[in-house]
Order: sequence, then C-alpha cells, then structure tokens
Amino acid sequence: DCLTSSTPQIPSFSASYTDSSDDETSPRDKQQKNSKGSSDFCVKNIKQAEFGRREIEIAEQEMPALMALRKRAQGEKPLAGAKIVGCTHITAQTAVLMETLGALGAQCRWAACNIYSTLNEVAAALAESGFPVFAWKGESEDDFWWCIDRCVNVEGWQPNMILDDGGDLTHWIYKKYPNMFKKIKGIVEESVTGVHRLYQLSKAGKLCVPAMNVNDSVTKQKFDNLYCCRESILDGLKRTTDMMFGGKQVVVCGYGEVGKGCCAALKAMGSIVYVTEIDPICALQACMDGFRLVKLNEVIRQVDIVITCTGNKNVVTREHLDRMKNSCIVCNMGHSNTEIDVASLRTPELTWERVRSQVDHVIWPDGKRIVLLAEGRLLNLSCSTVPTFVLSITATTQALALIELYNAPEGRYKQDVYLLPKKMDEYVASLHLPTFDAHLTELTDEQAKYLGLNKNGPFKPNYYRCWF
Amino acid sequence: DCLTSSTPQIPSFSASYTDSSDDETSPRDKQQKNSKGSSDFCVKNIKQAEFGRREIEIAEQEMPALMALRKRAQGEKPLAGAKIVGCTHITAQTAVLMETLGALGAQCRWAACNIYSTLNEVAAALAESGFPVFAWKGESEDDFWWCIDRCVNVEGWQPNMILDDGGDLTHWIYKKYPNMFKKIKGIVEESVTGVHRLYQLSKAGKLCVPAMNVNDSVTKQKFDNLYCCRESILDGLKRTTDMMFGGKQVVVCGYGEVGKGCCAALKAMGSIVYVTEIDPICALQACMDGFRLVKLNEVIRQVDIVITCTGNKNVVTREHLDRMKNSCIVCNMGHSNTEIDVASLRTPELTWERVRSQVDHVIWPDGKRIVLLAEGRLLNLSCSTVPTFVLSITATTQALALIELYNAPEGRYKQDVYLLPKKMDEYVASLHLPTFDAHLTELTDEQAKYLGLNKNGPFKPNYYRCWF
Amino acid sequence: DCLTSSTPQIPSFSASYTDSSDDETSPRDKQQKNSKGSSDFCVKNIKQAEFGRREIEIAEQEMPALMALRKRAQGEKPLAGAKIVGCTHITAQTAVLMETLGALGAQCRWAACNIYSTLNEVAAALAESGFPVFAWKGESEDDFWWCIDRCVNVEGWQPNMILDDGGDLTHWIYKKYPNMFKKIKGIVEESVTGVHRLYQLSKAGKLCVPAMNVNDSVTKQKFDNLYCCRESILDGLKRTTDMMFGGKQVVVCGYGEVGKGCCAALKAMGSIVYVTEIDPICALQACMDGFRLVKLNEVIRQVDIVITCTGNKNVVTREHLDRMKNSCIVCNMGHSNTEIDVASLRTPELTWERVRSQVDHVIWPDGKRIVLLAEGRLLNLSCSTVPTFVLSITATTQALALIELYNAPEGRYKQDVYLLPKKMDEYVASLHLPTFDAHLTELTDEQAKYLGLNKNGPFKPNYYRCWF
Amino acid sequence: DCLTSSTPQIPSFSASYTDSSDDETSPRDKQQKNSKGSSDFCVKNIKQAEFGRREIEIAEQEMPALMALRKRAQGEKPLAGAKIVGCTHITAQTAVLMETLGALGAQCRWAACNIYSTLNEVAAALAESGFPVFAWKGESEDDFWWCIDRCVNVEGWQPNMILDDGGDLTHWIYKKYPNMFKKIKGIVEESVTGVHRLYQLSKAGKLCVPAMNVNDSVTKQKFDNLYCCRESILDGLKRTTDMMFGGKQVVVCGYGEVGKGCCAALKAMGSIVYVTEIDPICALQACMDGFRLVKLNEVIRQVDIVITCTGNKNVVTREHLDRMKNSCIVCNMGHSNTEIDVASLRTPELTWERVRSQVDHVIWPDGKRIVLLAEGRLLNLSCSTVPTFVLSITATTQALALIELYNAPEGRYKQDVYLLPKKMDEYVASLHLPTFDAHLTELTDEQAKYLGLNKNGPFKPNYYRCWF
Repeated sequence: DCLTSSTPQIPSFSASYTDSSDDETSPRDKQQKNSKGSSDFCVKNIKQAEFGRREIEIAEQEMPALMALRKRAQGEKPLAGAKIVGCTHITAQTAVLMETLGALGAQCRWAACNIYSTLNEVAAALAESGFPVFAWKGESEDDFWWCIDRCVNVEGWQPNMILDDGGDLTHWIYKKYPNMFKKIKGIVEESVTGVHRLYQLSKAGKLCVPAMNVNDSVTKQKFDNLYCCRESILDGLKRTTDMMFGGKQVVVCGYGEVGKGCCAALKAMGSIVYVTEIDPICALQACMDGFRLVKLNEVIRQVDIVITCTGNKNVVTREHLDRMKNSCIVCNMGHSNTEIDVASLRTPELTWERVRSQVDHVIWPDGKRIVLLAEGRLLNLSCSTVPTFVLSITATTQALALIELYNAPEGRYKQDVYLLPKKMDEYVASLHLPTFDAHLTELTDEQAKYLGLNKNGPFKPNYYRCWF
Repeated sequence: DCLTSSTPQIPSFSASYTDSSDDETSPRDKQQKNSKGSSDFCVKNIKQAEFGRREIEIAEQEMPALMALRKRAQGEKPLAGAKIVGCTHITAQTAVLMETLGALGAQCRWAACNIYSTLNEVAAALAESGFPVFAWKGESEDDFWWCIDRCVNVEGWQPNMILDDGGDLTHWIYKKYPNMFKKIKGIVEESVTGVHRLYQLSKAGKLCVPAMNVNDSVTKQKFDNLYCCRESILDGLKRTTDMMFGGKQVVVCGYGEVGKGCCAALKAMGSIVYVTEIDPICALQACMDGFRLVKLNEVIRQVDIVITCTGNKNVVTREHLDRMKNSCIVCNMGHSNTEIDVASLRTPELTWERVRSQVDHVIWPDGKRIVLLAEGRLLNLSCSTVPTFVLSITATTQALALIELYNAPEGRYKQDVYLLPKKMDEYVASLHLPTFDAHLTELTDEQAKYLGLNKNGPFKPNYYRCWF
Repeated sequence: DCLTSSTPQIPSFSASYTDSSDDETSPRDKQQKNSKGSSDFCVKNIKQAEFGRREIEIAEQEMPALMALRKRAQGEKPLAGAKIVGCTHITAQTAVLMETLGALGAQCRWAACNIYSTLNEVAAALAESGFPVFAWKGESEDDFWWCIDRCVNVEGWQPNMILDDGGDLTHWIYKKYPNMFKKIKGIVEESVTGVHRLYQLSKAGKLCVPAMNVNDSVTKQKFDNLYCCRESILDGLKRTTDMMFGGKQVVVCGYGEVGKGCCAALKAMGSIVYVTEIDPICALQACMDGFRLVKLNEVIRQVDIVITCTGNKNVVTREHLDRMKNSCIVCNMGHSNTEIDVASLRTPELTWERVRSQVDHVIWPDGKRIVLLAEGRLLNLSCSTVPTFVLSITATTQALALIELYNAPEGRYKQDVYLLPKKMDEYVASLHLPTFDAHLTELTDEQAKYLGLNKNGPFKPNYYRCWF
Repeated sequence: DCLTSSTPQIPSFSASYTDSSDDETSPRDKQQKNSKGSSDFCVKNIKQAEFGRREIEIAEQEMPALMALRKRAQGEKPLAGAKIVGCTHITAQTAVLMETLGALGAQCRWAACNIYSTLNEVAAALAESGFPVFAWKGESEDDFWWCIDRCVNVEGWQPNMILDDGGDLTHWIYKKYPNMFKKIKGIVEESVTGVHRLYQLSKAGKLCVPAMNVNDSVTKQKFDNLYCCRESILDGLKRTTDMMFGGKQVVVCGYGEVGKGCCAALKAMGSIVYVTEIDPICALQACMDGFRLVKLNEVIRQVDIVITCTGNKNVVTREHLDRMKNSCIVCNMGHSNTEIDVASLRTPELTWERVRSQVDHVIWPDGKRIVLLAEGRLLNLSCSTVPTFVLSITATTQALALIELYNAPEGRYKQDVYLLPKKMDEYVASLHLPTFDAHLTELTDEQAKYLGLNKNGPFKPNYYRCWF
C-alpha cells in the first residue's frame, strides 16, 4: 500500500511516443551505458534520451522561476556540497527541477515515487546527462524498493538532504539506514500523505531532522487547488466525454478551493451549478457567489454531472447512483478516491462497460447508464494534464525549501515540521510574475514605515494562510 | 480542389480503436458482405460494425431531437417514397441522421464529402444495418468520385432528394446526370461553400430545383459559432499545448460570433484578451464587453496567443510572426485557412519541428520559436471535438429541410435558394429544449392577440437573423 | 393620451438643484428676456441658465461624437439653411444635440415631448444662448400643445426639417398646418410609438415626406437595450431598495436584448437567475447562457425578485402576485407598463404604502408585502439614470439622419420610412470609439478585394440587424 | 479626535424624510416624554417615532438571524440579568439588534458612536418603545460625551456588559468610572480602531476584563469586504457620476478582499481593469484572475477611474493626479482617507467645484478636471448604502459575542482579547442561510469519524482565517 500512498502527479494522458510495449525485459536485467560510459542508473531504454530531452526543453519554457534560479546561481552555488536523494514522479518538470538543483551545486540521486508515473524518455534523458536515475514505468513493488535502495545505498556517497513525495523514501531510510540521519540536514516533503507521516513522527518525538512541509505554502495551495482545478475540470470532462457544458446541470459537492475552482469554470461555460456543503461559512460563500446550496438528494435526479471535492468519504452513495438519470456523468476532483462509493457499483446486476480509456459506463438492468470517470479517482490527474506552470510553482517551492534547510544556521530549525517562511513563499510568487509581464509596486520608505513593513517583505504575517 | 471545398466536421482526435493501419488493400478491391448477405456498399472493413454501432448508440443519447422525430414518425412517414442521396462526413452523428431518415420512410445512399473524415467503424455499422454506404478514411481523389458515382449511378434507383455538404455531389450530378434533376424535388445544402455555389447557379439562372440553405438558420449559426467556439477554443488549446489560460495575454482577431465565443471563454478563464476589428459596430461591442480594441501591431510583441476568426486573408502576416515573442501560440478559428499566412513561414532560415500531432514549432535563427497549431487550419475541427449536441442541431435542421422540401405543395418553392422557414427553425430549437429540462411559456389567447402572433409561432419574422 | 405616447427618457432621479417649487406662476404668464434682449422662448426661469449651462458642459464630456461633428463642421456647414423644429425631452444631452445642430448651420425651435421631463435649468440655458425653447416641467395638456404651436407657427419662419420623439409634433403639423409639408424635406423620428405612426401613415399612403426611423439602427438598439439595461437594472434596484444582489433568486421574464442585459448583470453579481420565454430560439440561448428556463408558476413562490421585459401584457398576473413570498420585489424593464397587471392590485383588501419615491409596499391581509417599483412602469427610466454615453449614441444618430435627409439628392428618398443607411450607422459607432481609446483596423487593398468590400465600409449589408 | 475614530457605518444617502432642519433647539434643552410617560432618553424629536418604526420594520425583514434569535429566546433568556451599555451608530439595523438584546432578557442604554450618523427617527422609535437612547444627528463634541455619560452614570443601574464601536465608550469608563469594571463581564468591540486600542491595553497589562474582537470574524470580514464592496463600488460610482461602466479603463490599487470585490464587479460590467500590488502573492492572484498587474505610473494617463483599496497612504500622489486625463474619476474604497493625497490638491492654481453632494471637480489651469468622490473618504460609506444583510451579519455576531461572554463559565476567558470561537462564527453563518433557502448537508456518523470532526462543527480550526 506504500506504493499508492503518494499522489500521482502526472497525467496518464501524456503521450509517450517512443515506448515500445513489446520490450518485456526488466530494466534491472539490462546492461546499459550512457554516451559518457556511465552505467550508474537504471531506466527502461537509454536510447530514448533524445525524445525525453525535447520534452524537458519544452517544459523549461514554462518554468521561468527555476531557470531564473539557475541564472542567479552562476555566481554562487547555494547547494554546493549538497547530496540530495529524491523520490518523486519522474516527469519533464521534475527533470527541470533536478537539473536546476545540479546547477545550484548539488549532487542528486533519484527514484520514482509511483510505479506507473515515470516517463521513460525523461528518465533516459536524465541518465544520459549524468543523473543516477532509477525508475521506469510499470515497476513491480519489489522494483520500487530496489530503486529507492539503489539511490541511498551507495558506496562512498551519503545523502545529506532528502526530497520526498509521499514519504516512502523517508520511511525506507528510517527503516534500513537510520544512522544516515546523522548527516542529513533536512527533509523536504510535498505530499499530504508524507506531511501527515512527518507530523506523526514529530508528535511521537521520533523526527530526528528538521522537515519542511511545502504542501501547505499559500502559493502552492492556490495553484494546486483553485487555479489548476478551474482549468482541469473542463479539460478532464472534455477529453473523456466530449460533452457540451452550456446548459448542463451540475452538482459540485464541497465548496473549498477545489470546489470554488470547479464551480467558477462551469458557471462561466454556461452550466447551471448546484453546491452541497457541510460548513455554513463555505455554504454562505457559495450562496453569495451565485450557487444554489442544496442537499445532494434534492437534485440528484435532475443533474447531468456530479463532481465530488469534499475530502470526505461516501459522499456519493449507491443510493444516489441508483437515482441518477440516464447518462449522468460522475467524477471526483477531491484528493482521494473515497468520495464516490465505487465499490457499491460492483454488484452482479450492474454491467460495466469500458467505453474509452478512463471512462466506464455502468449499466442498470433497465438500461440506464451512468458515466463513471477514472473509477472515482482524481479526474484531473487521471484524465487531463496539469499545466507545467502549476508544477513550476511546486518545483520552485521545493528548490527554495532545500536551499533554506541546507543553508540555515545551526539552531534555526529544530527536529520539527516547518512551513516555508512567508518571505520565501512570496519569493516563489515573485519569480513567477515575469511570465505575466507583471510589474510589482514597491513601497516608498514613508509607506513602509506607515504600514510597519520591511520594503522587501514579508508583506503578510507567517500565519497568513487560506483554506477559505 | 473539390476535395477540400467542404468543411471537415469531425475531429482528427477522435479515437478509432479498431483501425488496423496495416491493412493496405483498397476497399474497392475487397469482396465484403454484411450479415444479411448484401454487398451494396463499400467500406474499409465490415467486421468493425459492432464498434461503430456503440459509437452510434452513444451519439443517439445526445441527439434527442432526431430521436423525437423518429418517435413521432411511428405513425406517419413524412419521407415515405423519398430517395435521398447524401454526401456528408460519415460520423456517428451522421449515422443517427441517416437512420432517422430511414425511420421517416426514406431510402438513402451515402458517400463521404471528405477523403479523411470517415469513421470506418461507423461506415461499417451503417453498411451492416443495410445502408448502401461508400466511404472510407483515406480515399484517393479517384476513390472520392467513384464513391459518389456509386451512390447515384444505380440500376433501378433514382434519387429524388439531395443532401449535400460542400456541393460536390450536386456538382457531379449536374455534370454527369443532368437529367436526374427532372425527378429531384430539392437540394439541402449545409456548407458555406456549397451554399455559395448554389447562389451562383441561381444567379446564373442554372439552378433547376429548389434548394434549402440550412447553413444560415439562426439556431445553427448560434451553435456552430458562438456556443461551439466558446467551448472548443479552450479544448483545442488544451489538447495541443496543455497551456494554462490564467493570466495569459491573448489577441483575438475579429469580433463576430466566433470571436465573441473565443473572447468570452478566455476571459472567463482569466486570460487578458485584446480584440482587433475592422467594423466599428462590432468594435464598439468589443469595447462594451470589456475588451481593449487594438491594432494587431500594437500588441503583437507582448501576447502569448494569437487567434484569428475574421473570415479574411493574411490577417497574420510574416511581419507579425517575426515580431511575436518566444513561445507565442498561433491558431485559427475562422472558416478557412487563409487567415494566417502560413506559406510565408516556408522559408529556408526557419526550421519546422513537429512536436505533437497538429502542433509545429517554427524556429527562428535566433532560437525563438512560435507554436503553430493545425498549420493554420480550423483549430476546433482539427484539434478538439465538436460536441454531439451541436451536430444534433445541424442534423435536425437538415432532416426538417428535407421533409419541408419533399412535402411542400407544388409552387411553394421555385428554382431558387431558400432559408429554412422561421417556424421550422423555432421547431428545431424546441426539439432541443427537453435536453435542458427547459419549459417554454405559452401565450394566452389575449397575449397572442396583443402581440399579433400565432400562439404556436413563428414568434419572429422570417428576416429575423443575427450576424451580430 | 398623446402626452404619454412618447417614452420618457430622462430619469426622475436627476437632481434639479435650483427649482423653487413655490413659484406657482405659469411661465406663459411671465415676461422674460435673455441677456441679449430676446424674449422668443418660454421657460420656467431664465435666471437658472447658469446652472443649466454647467450640466450641459458636463454632458458634453460624455458626448464625444457630437463634439467631433462640431469640429468637422467648422469648415463646411452641412445643415446651412436647415430650419429644424424639434420636439424631444429637454435635457442636458438634448441641449448638446441642439447646439451641435446650430454649429452645423441649422436654425432650431424646440418644444418638449413630455410634460414632466423638462429640466428647467437646461431649458433656461438654451434660451439664454439664443435657442427659442418652449418647455417647462409640469406643463398642462393645454401648455403642451401651446408650446408645440409656438415652435411651428411663427411669422416669417417655416421649418424644413422635423425631429420628433413620439410623433406629437408631426401629428400637430399634419392636423393644423398640412401645407407646411411642401417645404419639409424630411422627418427624423426616434420613438417606437412615433415610428409605428409613420409606418401607418405610409401604409395608408398619407406620408407626404421621407421619414427616417432612427429607433431601429443597430447601434442604438444595442445600447438602448443590452448595454444600458445591463447597468441600469442594478442601479434601479439599488437606488430603490438598497438590496444585496448576492444569492438572491430572480426570475427574468423575456430573453430578448433587455432580458439578456438584466440576466448577465444579475448573474455577475451573484444572483441565481431563472428565465421565462415563449420563443424556443431565445429559450435555447438562455439555456446555453446558463439560465434555467422555467414557467413563471414554477418559481413564483421562491424568487426574491421578478423582472419583466417581454413587450407583452399581463405577464405577471394577480394570481402570480398572490403567490409571491413576503418581500418579493416586482418591477418592469420592458417598454410599456402593461407587463405587470398593476390594476389587479387596486382591490380593497390590499393596502398600498408608499415607502419611498417610486417604491410601494402592497400589503396582503395576512401581512405579506410585495415591493412594487415605479408602479410597473419602466424601472430604468423611473428609478435610475441613463448614462450620457447611451444618449450620445441616439443623439448622434439623430444628427446624422437629419444631415442625410437634408442633403440627399432628389429622388434618393421617396415618401416612405427608411432605416439609417448601414454606413452611417457604422459612422455613429466609429465616432464613439475614441472614448475607449479604441483603434480600428483598416483593410488592405488586397483584403478588401478578397472580401468584396469597400475599405471604408459598409462592412455589413443593409439588412444586417439584430433582435437576437 | 475621538469623535472620528470610529468608522461611520451608515450611508449619508439614507433618506431622512421627516427631519425639519429648522428646529434649532438642542435636544438637551427639550422636555420630551414618550407615550408611556418616560423621559429617560434624549433624542431630536420623539414625535418622529412612527416613521422610525417603519424603517425598523423594513430592516427586520432583511435581518433574519436576529429575528430567529428572538424566537429561540422565547423559552430561555440567555441575557436575563444583562445590563448592556452600548455605543454604536444609531440606525434601523442597530435598533433591530437592540430590541433583540431586549427580547433575550437584557436591559440596554445606548449612545451614538458618531456625531453625524444617528437617524433621528430611529432614535425616536427606540425611545418611544422604552429604550433609554441618547443620540441625535449633529451632536457637538460636548454633546457626544454628555450622551455617553448619561448612559453610564445612572442612579441605581450599573452596566455589566459593554458593546462598543470605536472604543470611545470603553475609554470613557476607563477614565471616569474605572470601578465599574469590577462588575463588567466583558467588552464586545467591532471596529478596527477599537480593537487596536484593546490590544494595546492588553499588551500594557491594563485590560481588566475579557474582550471579544468581532471585527475579525471570518464571516464579517468576507461580507464587509469582498461581498459588500463587490456591490457598493458599482452603487457608489453610479449614484455620484451616472457613468457607464462598459469599456471604461479602471485601475484598482490593492488586491486584498476589497480590491478583489471591486475588480470582480467592474470586470463583470465590461470595464477593463488594471491592478497594482506590493505583495507578490496577491499580485499572482490578480494575474490568474485576469487582471494586468501594473505600476500606477504605467496606466495613470489612460485610465478613466482610479480606485484605492490598499490600507496604505499616499498611494495616489499629486504627481499622479497631475498626469490623469480629463474627467478621470478618483475615489477610495480603503478603510481610511489616507490613500489619496487629497491635501496636495489644496493649492491655489487648482479650482475646486462642488458639482453634487460628495462630488468635487478639481480643475487644472489648462481646464483639465478630475472628479474626486467623497474627498477621498470611503466611497461605499459616503456615497452608497450598505445592504441591511451585511449589517445583519455584524449585528448577529455582536449579539452572539455578548451571549458568549455573559454566559461563559468563570475562567474560560481571561483579561485578554479573543476572537469569536469558530463554532459561533459558523453559527452566525448558519443563521443567515435560510435567507437563501440554502440547505446544509449534515455529516453521517461515519463521515464525521472519518474526518475527525464533531457533526455539529466546528468544521474548521480556530485559526482558520482569511486575509487572502
């Protein structure tokens, strides 16, 4: 179950042009060398490197902040001496991050945090350019841990920083090489699950190095939730169903940031949107934003689409599913696959028909069919792509967190879980403004004094957060 | 050039699951029979019928108006005795139309109006259920005319109605079998090009039967342009580039219905949209709708996306392309591929790189690259899908036009080009309202008298149109 | 009833700072002279001229098109020799029009088309600067006709152009001085009512000069309906009720241009909007624009606001009013006061309470009260202001129509009712673009040829209209 | 200066129908009795009570939460024994609050927190129904403190709760009757200024009772800022200038909640909106929401409207004002009048012309004029009305805070400043949902367990806030 604990972050719709599915040999059994003669990696096929390189170059164009960091690093190398072991999705965007860490002075070794999510071409490109990468698409569970071990268990090399997504790497070191933590300066963790584990360790007094929770930075939250979902709900529905949004009746369960993004996008496209909520404050916001607040039961018979984004479980039950009208589309935008009770649909009287990738028709005895997307897993990760720009925010936050932890004077961080300092959060945002040719106003001395702020920020207190 | 004169209406992105690209035998050389023993058809592979049938069934669910027409036709058969020869794109939606015409009493023979647009599985399904269909994907020009001829030139069967899309079928009969027009009651034509040809024939006094221009019906115009483009501009850009819309600067050339749809969608997604126009009335509308009206030159250096929808030629010139910034995306939503001067990019100093299907990077000597979509052809037909619901409007309009022409009393229509009567246009609209669970208000007698209207419509005069 | 036939165009909310309501003397009994010694006028109080002048100056700033016409007229005087008799609302905006006509070479005499709508200060300012104006706020019916007569029946001066709003002036000349039409070159009429009368005269063969219908120009229609109502529905509701729009449930009866404007504004402010329609084409548009299409009965119990804009009668009946919930607001944005059956509320068991200007509470025996605005008359004219910019469009159209009719070569216009030529409509629009710093694109020769258009327009055919 | 320290919360545009401005006698010199013979009050004119009562009744209809509290209080009286002294604006909405406190069991005495904001008719109505109210419109500074003293300094009655708005009442008791605090159970304060004073007292160790900061409750913040400003920016601009929003270029300085509300409303009405920001996180949000982020200098020459909402000072300087174009409108939506450097306009070469209430034209020597609204004070409080519904949120929060402090078990609150517990904030929200006929979803036991929440809330942690 460790394998599924980290959120898959790359789209299954991403084209993988060069994969030959007929090559059945396990990468572990292959002898491969890159053009410089190194064989310190394990990827599907080193020959795919060129294709992967092009994907990386395309990604670089939408990751201006990392490229800016690289430029600034030409003089100083804030990560000189850093030995980073990483365990994340292996995508073009991760590659840009990894090569940026390299440019900043770090040595890196990398494994995948998900057995399915590796883009083989990108892994090949990284291996070709000298990164010890151990990952391929379709690893077995044994492969998965073997890859992680190959990153960590190296003769003459010991990591001093961890970049983790889901906590599996951290878990492995805790279990197998606890002594390594003596030299490790810190952990940067981005997933909900991984952060949760770290807080538990901390509570139990077992966290032995400082950890940075980059999942909850303001910028990342806004982009991962509100802005990204505003676009990907439309993309995910279109790619799977080719439906028309205009005039459709939709119910969105949950009016947090994800729900707000979904509602705004669908309303803008001419859908009629209903909202369900448990929290009266969010409910009141939904009202003021122009959405009718209902209980799911009130509209379940009439809606064309049901979207869950509550973080809760069994929000859509078999009873609801029984009452939906023919052709109703059901999908989940929340962070786990518990929201729709998909298991309840695995009963003998219902027929499942796979009509497209990620699209199932579930058919009732009377012929009614509902359209279930991604079997109730996260729609936007399963059926749409995540814009590189969103991943750029995340990757930049990770890079800055690594720099901060690596360079922090002794004593600034204890053996605890920290949020990114507000000022660095603001810095991540500022690095992304040039993309929009956006020009920030600077405070005059007089204004800074009036407001009691430093002219360079932070402009908001550290507790400035937003779950609203 | 006849081959390209009709608008391709089906997306090249549509999945075609069962095509085996290795079968190189021309359908014309194959001996095929459907399960009832008939061989009066010519398709790629009759064995794909089952897959095509499922696509047709899915389409039926989004084409409520045609299904309603079928139901009403159980008693009367308004097309009893009709022998319709058709030449359109062969898609699941066309299949629903064709089978509806059959249910209404007509006999049909069908060819494709485009050498690339046929969905082989759908053609197979139609052939299997007894429709003489002559079409496959990837016809040669010779195949194209051969297929049309096979529809028309039949022993013991002569068409009395024509349904055309692009005018090629009509052209062929004029050229080869002019005598057939003696028995033909009318032509229904839906494309801009085909309608243009008919008006020319009419002007020249050579139109020998009544023709119905269904392209310019109010309902079809609104859906094909405003509503469809509002959704497909987003879809087309996402599927090709995975870009994020928020904060992007976009210039839309032309503020007709298509431009209005594009602008509304992009503004709603958080893009900053500029508009160019030649007509001061449309320009003033753009201003009032919140878009800065500029000349293309004023913003060409700063925008992230350029979209043309003017109906004009050379709106984006090489000079504009030279001045665009790196990574600028260029695409066309207008009805022909003349708007962007793509030819001007075929010069030796520029490198073209095909990075995805329908996506080219054109690279300047200094490394600047622009992203050209669909080589300047219509983006939404090339790179997105057209919702079935939009095609349902068109197909219903075609069906009603056929019924009207076939049943019109002698003398109602002369040898001229007609618009669909307003009342039938309203009827098409009304047949689509149940999809939205929409409830129309009926006039009371007193109100009808006050307004001087018949309670059943038409509610607007025949000249009620909208290009605005 | 003639007095009420023309649409009141100025807001009753306009401040009239200097009116002393205690001056009870009829202007007809006063002896007044302007500073140049002329007494050829009749206004409330010539001493208010200075205040009126300031209002005119403020209006000039939002009427750029007329000011541009004045500038261009410094060389040529297209109305030299024109003797215009006018009958319109006397407002600051009309004053700018009148003074523009003067600058273009015309002599003008003017009366009011409505007994309540004259701004006395503006009338005084016009009289002071030499315009023979006969109008004041609160005329009797006898005063009304006396004023018109004083404009027409002058020794040694005979009009050769008529500018009318409502048709009363035209009616008066037909009745009293039919011989005058021998010298009259044309009539420009802007109201629905006046235009209707002209068409009736024309049908009856009694129209003896050309008439220009400026009511139906595309630009004027869009601004008077869609754009103006989009803003004034909010303004009218706020000024009368101080209500909050967010979360309110609203039903808008009618989805023509006025309804579209109301719906768009309220949706944007967070209201939940339902629409009723009789025409399936408009109904389908409402659906696609994201509004639930209902019958009034379905939602009448739940809505907070009912807005009529159908052009129909008795759309809101006593039965509907009986079923509304407590505090429901009822108002009309349609062009006559027939839409809400206000008369049905004048029954003994209901109590009327006037709570503010233009706001009545109608109270049922059980204590339920509905809030009726402007007694069912046009909300935006009664309870909000019309932006000067909208009136600028109308006034410019009137000026151009006068120039066109006055200068048209013999024979261009017969004794019939004409629409403004498309090219002049476009010209009106173009004169308003500088307000928005909007830059029109010009066709190249090659493009003009490709499109078959003149580079200077018209860009659309004369039948290009839009009621949609 | 104490007099101006509290925010004026009632609109100067509110109609006051019955005020006879000619009555110059000071209320302190009048002998007045209500119909029950009491003279324990001091208002302008007790005879205006009936008019005030109607305003109160109208307000009751939009304050459903207080009315619900009254109903629930029919059984229990949670404020039985409470003796509340209050100092707030005296408006219809305050009256509903006061009478609710009475219904809950409290005795109240009340003064005004602002010398101008009292609605005399409402004060009269309260006095008539037995509330000792000491307030009138146009108090002198001496009157102001006299009134407060009359509330506090009463024979045989001593307050045990304080409800303050601005801190003047609290200040007076600290200064004159410090011993009273022995019996006082708590202070409820709603203004920014008053809260600031309390935190200072607390820091200095001088706060001798618990205080509740109701200004920073989530619900109140959202309504006072985002939702209220979204509506009032339009209302304030319309009432003062009658301008048209469509096509206008606007710059909004500051993209906090107020700025977000202003931007959303103006964009929705067709304005083109630019944003300035100092904080990169808010700046990035502005970009993603579709606004160009600029420095004020970049657009100052071209915009039609400048709106400040930064909380900063001298955001619009004389230099900016010098560069604005003719007719530019300048106004402030921020919480103090420091944002526009209005003082810099008081120079001899500039002419000020008061053209309407709250509207000044400032005229440059070359004739350029800018339109300054409310002399740079808060536009929505000066020139528009605040919807009763927004005030209902505030008043309900105050009532619940009083109940909480009054009934809290000993020790729950120390001598410190507290935020309203999250659960009560949620309760305020839930009491307002019925207005929208909104139906909250309840957690099942299983879901509550899964989420680790109590089924009745709180649903978010106490630190759940939102400045974003």
